[in-house]
Amino acid sequence: MIVTLLTDFGTRDYFVGALKGALLSVNPEARVVDITHEVAPHDVEEAAFTLLAAYETFPAGTVHVAVVDPGVGSARRAIAVEGAGQFFVGPDNGVFGHVYERLARFRVFHVVEEKFFREPVSKTFHGRDVFAPVAGALARGTRPRELGPEVTDFVRLPFAAPFQRDASTLVASVIHVDRFGNCVTNVTRLDLGGEANARGARLVAGGRELSSFRDFFADDAGARGEPFAVWGSAGLLEIAVFKDSAARVLGLGRGSEIEVVLGRSC
Amino acid sequence: MIVTLLTDFGTRDYFVGALKGALLSVNPEARVVDITHEVAPHDVEEAAFTLLAAYETFPAGTVHVAVVDPGVGSARRAIAVEGAGQFFVGPDNGVFGHVYERLARFRVFHVVEEKFFREPVSKTFHGRDVFAPVAGALARGTRPRELGPEVTDFVRLPFAAPFQRDASTLVASVIHVDRFGNCVTNVTRLDLGGEANARGARLVAGGRELSSFRDFFADDAGARGEPFAVWGSAGLLEIAVFKDSAARVLGLGRGSEIEVVLGRSC
Amino acid sequence: MIVTLLTDFGTRDYFVGALKGALLSVNPEARVVDITHEVAPHDVEEAAFTLLAAYETFPAGTVHVAVVDPGVGSARRAIAVEGAGQFFVGPDNGVFGHVYERLARFRVFHVVEEKFFREPVSKTFHGRDVFAPVAGALARGTRPRELGPEVTDFVRLPFAAPFQRDASTLVASVIHVDRFGNCVTNVTRLDLGGEANARGARLVAGGRELSSFRDFFADDAGARGEPFAVWGSAGLLEIAVFKDSAARVLGLGRGSEIEVVLGRSC
Repeated sequence: MIVTLLTDFGTRDYFVGALKGALLSVNPEARVVDITHEVAPHDVEEAAFTLLAAYETFPAGTVHVAVVDPGVGSARRAIAVEGAGQFFVGPDNGVFGHVYERLARFRVFHVVEEKFFREPVSKTFHGRDVFAPVAGALARGTRPRELGPEVTDFVRLPFAAPFQRDASTLVASVIHVDRFGNCVTNVTRLDLGGEANARGARLVAGGRELSSFRDFFADDAGARGEPFAVWGSAGLLEIAVFKDSAARVLGLGRGSEIEVVLGRSC
Repeated sequence: MIVTLLTDFGTRDYFVGALKGALLSVNPEARVVDITHEVAPHDVEEAAFTLLAAYETFPAGTVHVAVVDPGVGSARRAIAVEGAGQFFVGPDNGVFGHVYERLARFRVFHVVEEKFFREPVSKTFHGRDVFAPVAGALARGTRPRELGPEVTDFVRLPFAAPFQRDASTLVASVIHVDRFGNCVTNVTRLDLGGEANARGARLVAGGRELSSFRDFFADDAGARGEPFAVWGSAGLLEIAVFKDSAARVLGLGRGSEIEVVLGRSC
Repeated sequence: MIVTLLTDFGTRDYFVGALKGALLSVNPEARVVDITHEVAPHDVEEAAFTLLAAYETFPAGTVHVAVVDPGVGSARRAIAVEGAGQFFVGPDNGVFGHVYERLARFRVFHVVEEKFFREPVSKTFHGRDVFAPVAGALARGTRPRELGPEVTDFVRLPFAAPFQRDASTLVASVIHVDRFGNCVTNVTRLDLGGEANARGARLVAGGRELSSFRDFFADDAGARGEPFAVWGSAGLLEIAVFKDSAARVLGLGRGSEIEVVLGRSC
């Protein structure tokens, strides 16, 4: 079974190696796949976005380990999530917040059964001592309910999903700004009620109205400098400016609110 | 089967993870091997050199995916190459240009059969939606000719191979400058007609004649500051200066022409 | 079988890819696991520490390849180490120095049997031509003694283990300073004669006495600025300062001597 790793450990220290060893000791057949180890330190929201954009491409049965864990050593819970045939293991701090919104049905379990842990459990390295061996167990067929009790008060992310203000207005948020300054929102095609409506929708972002939807980042001299909306490869609506930073041009950052006026009204 | 990945995606974003997931969804048995994801953005020639220097060590049956693809979304073709028992999948932009020169025989196919793609194919992320699933199919036994028609007008690289100006002179090029300033040329031992001739050969580079061939980068105080030629570990002639940058000393860069006066004339 | 890789190659060049290919050509079933490729160039001691902190988590049978090899091309030996059911392959330059101290029993073999090498062996890239194929052979069942004669004059690291100055004083060293300035020493719980004694022990480091042992890096306002000792996740005693650099506060660096006055004397 495939086990993916997503951490803020960096790739220079021994942390990633030790985590992989702990996983493979429990489950030598696990197929370890690095998603990234370069999430900004302690940036739970960046990790949540990266996982959202990557997990859907993996086959059923995949176990995703996410260790961005500023609360390690405190009372934060370890959890395992089951949904869409995949599994997720990590701290209960919102790192699976975007996945919750995407999954139609999922269950969350508080991981407490110490027999699945590496002994002794250190205070500072639960990636190696808790999450990796638990992932190894899940990849070997352990059921999430064997790890501990189901919980419903797990930590969600603010801004994880848009909400409908009225019949024609969706209030959404920027959930990620990429290195080019493109602003990824939490709006999916489903939120806009299909492609036809999407084409008629208008966006208000940073106090400006954007009406232009694009297919991709093609050269279009006439529109240079004008912000536009585009379906990004993560399946989410992005706001971009050709060869410029939409975040800078529109004054947007992670958490910034945007409004979508739905196509029907046009 | 082994599938290697060579991209300019960097390792911080979700791109590498999503590509791996798409590959493993098509072929859960694929053994994914990262070559690098840190090719300079859009630098097709750097990717072509890195692939040249790495691919030969892999066993027969390996599938190499190269995604350095500034033309994604345009009309550039997706291609699959078969040669020396290995396979190569990527854009038709010269990224396999050095491999073509090295392979005695090879065939190139235009990848058009959409049944091998991930649906829907995005405009901007063919690594995930086209190249990865096609590589997964090749690693599972799909023949390249099943992917689309054979083509002969594929894109080659300029400077990929030296040419003979006259009986005694080979005109070659610098194809890569490494981080130490060593200049890797496109000259192989075969081009020089064997080791004996190589020892007598003289090089003209950056307007200076180099006559000294070395075995490796050993300390040699007498020669400090003097450029010399050496067979690099990629099997190509390199021009180096002990503890200095040959590129700087000789004013060379990628694409710079050099001349080899063959040993017979000495 | 699992083969881990630990190098100073960086991840941008073709070196890691070529090494992996050479390994997989010898042993297509090897499960390749990257520990890190970002050891500081030629820093044998950093590599030795990283390996120490990572290897123990791996299952029996794992082969660890460590290529931090400033002496490549010189007369330094290639060696293979067998201990605790695991194997280690690399240059005989101290890179396994910390592992020697940790292993109760181990044997070291001089790797000379060229039939296990990739031909031709380059002068500068033994990672690809010697260490990777030898690791592939070990992972396939080759016994270390088939690689060459056992040796006992292998290179150890200075400061690898503490020594007892008198009945109550242990002289130890800083073997690693992490990116936060925490100073990892070579002191294990075993060196202190068990947890009970550890609690009573006092440390002298950088001319100051530290008496405070902590469980982890928790917030403790009263102690801000005061250096303290903590069992780090690598199982070694570390000297830390809350939200500051212990290396800077105490003037410590790699190789700095510290004294532990054992608990019995309190």
